[in-house]
Amino acid sequence: MAAAEKTLLVDCDTGVDDAIALLYLLADPKVEVCGITTVFGNISATMAARNTLCVLDVAGRTGSVPVAVGSEVTLTGEAPVHGTHVHGSNGLGGVKLSAPAGRPETVSAAEMIVRTARERPGKVHMLATGPLTNLAVALRLEPKLPQLIAGVTIMGGAASAPGNVTPAAEANVWHDPEAAQAVFSAPWATTLVPLDATMGEVMSEQQRLSLAASRSPTARFAAAILDHYFDFYTPIFGRRSCPCHDALAAGVATGEVVPQRAMTVGITVETGCGPARGATICDLRGSYRGEQRQPGATCTVVLETSGRFAEDIVRRLVGGPGA
Amino acid sequence: MAAAEKTLLVDCDTGVDDAIALLYLLADPKVEVCGITTVFGNISATMAARNTLCVLDVAGRTGSVPVAVGSEVTLTGEAPVHGTHVHGSNGLGGVKLSAPAGRPETVSAAEMIVRTARERPGKVHMLATGPLTNLAVALRLEPKLPQLIAGVTIMGGAASAPGNVTPAAEANVWHDPEAAQAVFSAPWATTLVPLDATMGEVMSEQQRLSLAASRSPTARFAAAILDHYFDFYTPIFGRRSCPCHDALAAGVATGEVVPQRAMTVGITVETGCGPARGATICDLRGSYRGEQRQPGATCTVVLETSGRFAEDIVRRLVGGPGA
Repeated sequence: MAAAEKTLLVDCDTGVDDAIALLYLLADPKVEVCGITTVFGNISATMAARNTLCVLDVAGRTGSVPVAVGSEVTLTGEAPVHGTHVHGSNGLGGVKLSAPAGRPETVSAAEMIVRTARERPGKVHMLATGPLTNLAVALRLEPKLPQLIAGVTIMGGAASAPGNVTPAAEANVWHDPEAAQAVFSAPWATTLVPLDATMGEVMSEQQRLSLAASRSPTARFAAAILDHYFDFYTPIFGRRSCPCHDALAAGVATGEVVPQRAMTVGITVETGCGPARGATICDLRGSYRGEQRQPGATCTVVLETSGRFAEDIVRRLVGGPGA
Repeated sequence: MAAAEKTLLVDCDTGVDDAIALLYLLADPKVEVCGITTVFGNISATMAARNTLCVLDVAGRTGSVPVAVGSEVTLTGEAPVHGTHVHGSNGLGGVKLSAPAGRPETVSAAEMIVRTARERPGKVHMLATGPLTNLAVALRLEPKLPQLIAGVTIMGGAASAPGNVTPAAEANVWHDPEAAQAVFSAPWATTLVPLDATMGEVMSEQQRLSLAASRSPTARFAAAILDHYFDFYTPIFGRRSCPCHDALAAGVATGEVVPQRAMTVGITVETGCGPARGATICDLRGSYRGEQRQPGATCTVVLETSGRFAEDIVRRLVGGPGA
């Protein structure tokens, strides 16, 4: 294995597309996944940790990456609504899983985030593919976190695109708008990968079947957990397929995906209780004059990628460990 | 003059682009403008009525269209913020105007709306190019108004496009979100012409100069009042130009502009006090499966038009009365 070029700490609510993102990252020799923290969202944080440990087993990486369980409730303490209708009752498409070989760490997710950042200041990049509760708690634990972390890439929000949970809000932000607002307003370099980009990166049933037909156990596992996810997305796209939400954010975080259109702008989250609750208000007004960067803004919103990223995922997983 | 094919009652806050819309309509032999009601917004409702009477004089229509003054405050009674930085101190680009020959009616705007609708049930189409306060008050005066009015076309809102007053909200809706919510939730056929469409219909400085060089006093008046408006939009577009907001809605209302892309969907206005206040949340989630009409929805959102509408305006005004 070549020396890793990028060190990632991943915070996720390991449902189907988080698992695909993890498999994609774990099969990349240029990436060191130095820890995985879990949060409520698609399922509970505890089940997300169990699923994460199962994914590490599938990837042949048992015991090599520390996993910590994070928040089971929102930043303000509200009970969550899980996304099991999207991700299946166990978060991995209802696929029967063996008990994982590994166990979670005893520290909490936010503690692991802060500890990792302090140990390797300026070296660790965060990838968040779930609600932003753990990151918000970590910011309260260590206010200097933005100076210790190299950058944050987030799958979440909707800039110009419609929301998914509501007409205005995307699931990860909708699950905990107050946490998202805390994270977006912290002084770190943030890259947001919203539905504008991810809904344009669609995996076809043909591509899923090519994963299923692979000799790679990683690819076959991916095809199996994607089956239920494809069912959920069939009425949304009008055909069997799914968007590559979290994996796209992983590709952006590692630099493998280069945005075709992006703007660096101020972002505010609507935290009121009206119909726009959880909306990510990205100030795109400069687009009419071709502005790429709003003065003072530190959040880059990815608006469009190639539309061919599913090919990269399939190639990576088919060629991954066990192939 | 040919017999009018469409009868329009126009509710407006006569600033620059409302005036252009009125001149565009008054020069159309197929359209009967049966009344004009004014509302606070770009300026006060009183000044909007004065400007409307001046526009009638310019169009050679003094005394032929009744004008009524409407609300000076929002539906909930809040003092307005006027848009004089956009439209000039007098709402018509600071152009010096003679005192109008006509006078407003003694009835209020909402009374004129209700009276006109009752007199000609099912025959009158409404065009609203300002805050929706008068329409909301009229709905309270006469709950059967939606059955009496043939349809409502509204310039306002932003579906996928950025807002203008704030990153989330367009001016007409932002001025009175509670009124907009009342109007959108009433059971009438509504056509919304939001920034998505209007920001794509841009008049160039060359086109404005061709108005200024015309023999038509109507065209020269339009060029004069557009001068300040172009100044305001120069930093927004990065060049001297302006969007044809209200005139585009007028073109859609008369049927002269045929949308190239539209969806009939549920619309909700954010009326909370957070950063999304005044956002028009259009449920565009069906777009991924090519859905044109959401079941049960009665509001058609115009998302794109030809992009060449400014040519039609110039042609109409140059060929208008006095040419």
